[in-house]
Amino acid sequence: MAVYTHLAAEDLAQLIAQYDVGDLVSAKGIAEGVSNSNWLIETTGSAQEGTRFILTMYERRIDISELPFFLGLLDHLSAKGCPVPRTIHDRSGAASRRIEGKAVALIEFLPGVSVDHPTVQQAHNVGAVLARMHYDALDYEQSRANNLGPSASARVLEQCDADALAKIDPQLPDMIDEAQSIARNWPADLPQSVIHSDLFPDNVLMRGDEVSALIDFYFACNDAMAYDLAVTHAAWSFADHGRTYRPQIGQALMAGYESVRPLEQAERVALPLLAQGACMRFVASRAEDWIETPADALVTRKDPMDFVRRLETYRAGGTGIFTA
Amino acid sequence: MAVYTHLAAEDLAQLIAQYDVGDLVSAKGIAEGVSNSNWLIETTGSAQEGTRFILTMYERRIDISELPFFLGLLDHLSAKGCPVPRTIHDRSGAASRRIEGKAVALIEFLPGVSVDHPTVQQAHNVGAVLARMHYDALDYEQSRANNLGPSASARVLEQCDADALAKIDPQLPDMIDEAQSIARNWPADLPQSVIHSDLFPDNVLMRGDEVSALIDFYFACNDAMAYDLAVTHAAWSFADHGRTYRPQIGQALMAGYESVRPLEQAERVALPLLAQGACMRFVASRAEDWIETPADALVTRKDPMDFVRRLETYRAGGTGIFTA
Repeated sequence: MAVYTHLAAEDLAQLIAQYDVGDLVSAKGIAEGVSNSNWLIETTGSAQEGTRFILTMYERRIDISELPFFLGLLDHLSAKGCPVPRTIHDRSGAASRRIEGKAVALIEFLPGVSVDHPTVQQAHNVGAVLARMHYDALDYEQSRANNLGPSASARVLEQCDADALAKIDPQLPDMIDEAQSIARNWPADLPQSVIHSDLFPDNVLMRGDEVSALIDFYFACNDAMAYDLAVTHAAWSFADHGRTYRPQIGQALMAGYESVRPLEQAERVALPLLAQGACMRFVASRAEDWIETPADALVTRKDPMDFVRRLETYRAGGTGIFTA
Repeated sequence: MAVYTHLAAEDLAQLIAQYDVGDLVSAKGIAEGVSNSNWLIETTGSAQEGTRFILTMYERRIDISELPFFLGLLDHLSAKGCPVPRTIHDRSGAASRRIEGKAVALIEFLPGVSVDHPTVQQAHNVGAVLARMHYDALDYEQSRANNLGPSASARVLEQCDADALAKIDPQLPDMIDEAQSIARNWPADLPQSVIHSDLFPDNVLMRGDEVSALIDFYFACNDAMAYDLAVTHAAWSFADHGRTYRPQIGQALMAGYESVRPLEQAERVALPLLAQGACMRFVASRAEDWIETPADALVTRKDPMDFVRRLETYRAGGTGIFTA
């Protein structure tokens, strides 16, 4: 969470002048996003575009050739009334520009705060908006493969090496076999759309109980809709670092989702495994980050065991957990 | 530049409810301040207080017992029409509150951006606003000693140790003697007020050529007004890491200051030494930070030599530099 690049106000003002949004009034670097720099921008505004924006500079991880997929998706969903910030295009119609050798995009600012401890009503509404997003994305014309699927998780854990994993937690090396098993049994042929695939509470803005925005679509890809629901379930329905499952939250999320898009039988059957695969993805990425981050770095490392515990809950609970 | 503490949206909403500013709408952690966490807060607002605020959490360096001095100063200056954000008081009238064991204050949000490369007109206006602030602060009833004066700089450099200083730059150990000499010759009896004492371009918000706000008063103290002008001169009038003196900027700053508050003869004579003392303060604090920060830390270390070069310019230039 940082601003990785310093942008002089003079350069920012020049950049903003390329858009039909009026003159720069204020710019604050915001502590959001782990692979981008972001600024909250205020301008004198224009009738069409408003006065406040998020300027994102793409620093790492994101392949710039994929930007049209991500930025086009925001426009596609926003045009359908889905609560997603749209991309502000510059005067030439471009969705992104380059400054100091890096790609930047100006994104609509939407109000709302990310909750830490969702209520039942909030979980219900998040489920409903997720289903709506899945429907709205069905006819999105661009596509992007999921490069963080179950085989990728297994590969990452193999590369982490059992000894290094054991140093984090003695239980962690067992996850290598388990990840391979999940990948072997991964269901094919579930109904697909473009999925968010990272819908943690951080990535949902709320005003009271209402969802005001889904944000941070930089993991979006074409994959099974039920997998997205499983990711969201794993991200929202636990407390105390994965130690406590909150059944009311999980049930509300499912009920909200199915109030818009009822699940097919094959999805229902697949959910326990999909949820284990979702957990395994975060076990793998957190283990990798843990090993790569020095213990005395100023960055807080996230414990992969938070998601091992969730995975165990899903393994033990079967389809019962996903009853709305 | 970071947000050091995570505040749950639910806790933030509860905190905001203690103020007459409406309900929480948005909160973004902003990457400003090295010793505080800051959030840009939007609320549904109230007629009196507006809708946007900076929430500051005091993390380090600041002695909480000094908060009434800093927060009261904002109110004092703001009430006189000085472009300074005022403190928003809670429903009980308190200027600060505590949350998670830490002190927080809600501060008025003022628009504007910090310039990297000031123009002559901007420098003139900053000088004028600084002089105005000095006048407006004359009758501020609280006081605070300057704990970062010339003797403190000498002490910090002595404690850094000549060997450690030499590792940063072979020229740096000479600064120990020079700091002691500056401290010995420091002028007494110059006219005093409350001074900002850290008015770098970062701490001035501008809209075009106009100063919209002076911010970050957490080094403010009672000291010589001419010393504050010297700090500002050293902070604004150089380019290229202190290698290039920009005489037009320095002159405009002086002219702007004197357009509001003409200097006394004793101040004029003292300025070259005051400016060397100002530079020495940043040489000392940067050297100390450099030695304390591991080379592989994610934080960018600031080179103390940037201010050694400035100091040499002031030593060589004499009073001629300060001719408006």
